[in-house]
Amino acid sequence: MAELETSKLSEAFSMNGGDGPNSYAKNSTLQRGVVDATKELLSKAIAENLDIETLLSSKTFHIADLGCSVGPNTFFSVENLLEAVEFKYQSQGLNSQILEFQVFFNDHTPNDFNMLFKSLAENRRYYAAGVPGSFYGRLFPNASIQMVHSSYATHWLSRVPKEVADRNTPAWNKGRIYYSNSTDEVVMAYEAQYAEDMEYFLHVRAQEIVHGGLMLLIIIGRPNGTPHSDSRANITFQILGSCLMDLARKGTVSEEKVDSFNVPMYCMSPQEVEAAVERNGCFSIESIENLPAVKPPDNVSKTQLFASHMRAAGEGLVKHHFGEEILDELFDLYQKKLEEQPSAVESGKSISFLVVLKRKA
Amino acid sequence: MAELETSKLSEAFSMNGGDGPNSYAKNSTLQRGVVDATKELLSKAIAENLDIETLLSSKTFHIADLGCSVGPNTFFSVENLLEAVEFKYQSQGLNSQILEFQVFFNDHTPNDFNMLFKSLAENRRYYAAGVPGSFYGRLFPNASIQMVHSSYATHWLSRVPKEVADRNTPAWNKGRIYYSNSTDEVVMAYEAQYAEDMEYFLHVRAQEIVHGGLMLLIIIGRPNGTPHSDSRANITFQILGSCLMDLARKGTVSEEKVDSFNVPMYCMSPQEVEAAVERNGCFSIESIENLPAVKPPDNVSKTQLFASHMRAAGEGLVKHHFGEEILDELFDLYQKKLEEQPSAVESGKSISFLVVLKRKA
Repeated sequence: MAELETSKLSEAFSMNGGDGPNSYAKNSTLQRGVVDATKELLSKAIAENLDIETLLSSKTFHIADLGCSVGPNTFFSVENLLEAVEFKYQSQGLNSQILEFQVFFNDHTPNDFNMLFKSLAENRRYYAAGVPGSFYGRLFPNASIQMVHSSYATHWLSRVPKEVADRNTPAWNKGRIYYSNSTDEVVMAYEAQYAEDMEYFLHVRAQEIVHGGLMLLIIIGRPNGTPHSDSRANITFQILGSCLMDLARKGTVSEEKVDSFNVPMYCMSPQEVEAAVERNGCFSIESIENLPAVKPPDNVSKTQLFASHMRAAGEGLVKHHFGEEILDELFDLYQKKLEEQPSAVESGKSISFLVVLKRKA
Repeated sequence: MAELETSKLSEAFSMNGGDGPNSYAKNSTLQRGVVDATKELLSKAIAENLDIETLLSSKTFHIADLGCSVGPNTFFSVENLLEAVEFKYQSQGLNSQILEFQVFFNDHTPNDFNMLFKSLAENRRYYAAGVPGSFYGRLFPNASIQMVHSSYATHWLSRVPKEVADRNTPAWNKGRIYYSNSTDEVVMAYEAQYAEDMEYFLHVRAQEIVHGGLMLLIIIGRPNGTPHSDSRANITFQILGSCLMDLARKGTVSEEKVDSFNVPMYCMSPQEVEAAVERNGCFSIESIENLPAVKPPDNVSKTQLFASHMRAAGEGLVKHHFGEEILDELFDLYQKKLEEQPSAVESGKSISFLVVLKRKA
């Protein structure tokens, strides 16, 4: 037997593990809001698009959550999916007693699967498995998955575009950590990386998902027609970059170190996703819909929320490159900058959208 | 949908994680010997007993390794199984290109799955998933597994029999940590726990394994007709118990603490397994065969090997009950006792045997 088509991914990043004050588990309130806001949209998408033939193709309904992190949001999402599938099953007069669920929780190998497993509810009504590895590679056997779900994960690229960190190319990203406020060459390098990653993502998923199976992607991105520099998510990374340059000026880190640091994230628009799906050709686009904006809880300021979330999501990247010592100083400075210029962030444009794809027969 | 039939298991023990000097990963040489010695037997068992209909029942061949620990032995075993299945496949003139493997690595939830996942070979030719949970409960959907493998794991009971740790019952195991040198009541309590556990183990596996699917169990036990007190594995635990009582006499630990500590392990005989399989009724016994004795490597004494292995396998249990402080003193004393009375251990009777079961149609 040939070796599996393995992942292209050489660099793996994961959210903060454990359950400490800066952990992703304790700082994913925004995403939890998304889970709740999405519930209705997901239920509708499943009710309208899940075919009976797909439901009946196997006694076990296999769901994969890609980029699951450590919980708890992945568990809430999965419960919502199960409920919607069962509802569809029952609404067709089928006896749900005979339907069993197996859920595959996927994330990069360095993800804290130990914590994920400990957090699994004891009385869950599905069989759980953890699947380590990049979703930019094959994770599952051919035609073995009825439903793929991924929330707030596909904006991570498989890697930083190589030329961006190479001082001998025109795309060298000196003095910045991100593409959105950079030169055309850097922007183009990121766009090309995104296109390649998304092409590969769709290619491997098309092999894994059964005909008629659904892929539900919740993506944070920018509205159609928005320049990269006006995207809110991008602005927050630009600010983090300026904080790092401040630390370089203070001598806390070297400027060279900042030059060689780049965030492997890309803020896509719905149109870009559509184009990629059409190029791939294996999926039909059932719907693309914006999610309702999520309000932060009353007792937390937007700035605090942005800051704590950036730390939970980005700390791993920063630590990996700069070491642990700079974390507190950097993220304190980051929160201060956000507070000084709240309008910079708030004027940025941001959308989260749900893409519903069906694997063509 | 009803909740899953959940595990009976309330107490979970796992091997030492990580890859430090006392880790299970670094101290499972004896088991590695077993892996090698077993390879031929497993290949033969698969060649003789794997039905073509089972092979063809699914495009994916699903293997579960129960009690996988953190590697590397589980990876060697899985490679051996894959090779044997592929050989059978090819020998039937089938094109192995279309056969894909998905391997489920199972162990208790506290097992170090992070380390297991990091140790997975990049160029493996199977899809890997981790499944946390006791194998004394349901782990997989109905009829979803073609082959179950478990090596050196089923001798662990789901728990210490309750009455053994209860000073108000005749089965209270005062001054001992194990059953084999204890009163009839304690022995009977362990025997009953084993019978219940094995009954449940077979009951849940019968639901998970496809008709014609194989279960390959490698078990450390005692030869038919051997009293519990003459079993070598049991003797080693008796010695560990006497070390703990020595520490109690020295005042390092309280005697009460020793009284309430018991090892949830049972050394079964092939006849006991046969009887359990027949009671269950869902499996045919294809073969039960003793494994060849494994010689320790030349540069390591038997005593060292026994001592380091006892520490890697038993440290978690001891630490959980007594705390970390006593570990070095206890296991040093243990090795000393083994060296003083090598004949006590060597006169003990021990066998490892392979049980090959087939799920009846």
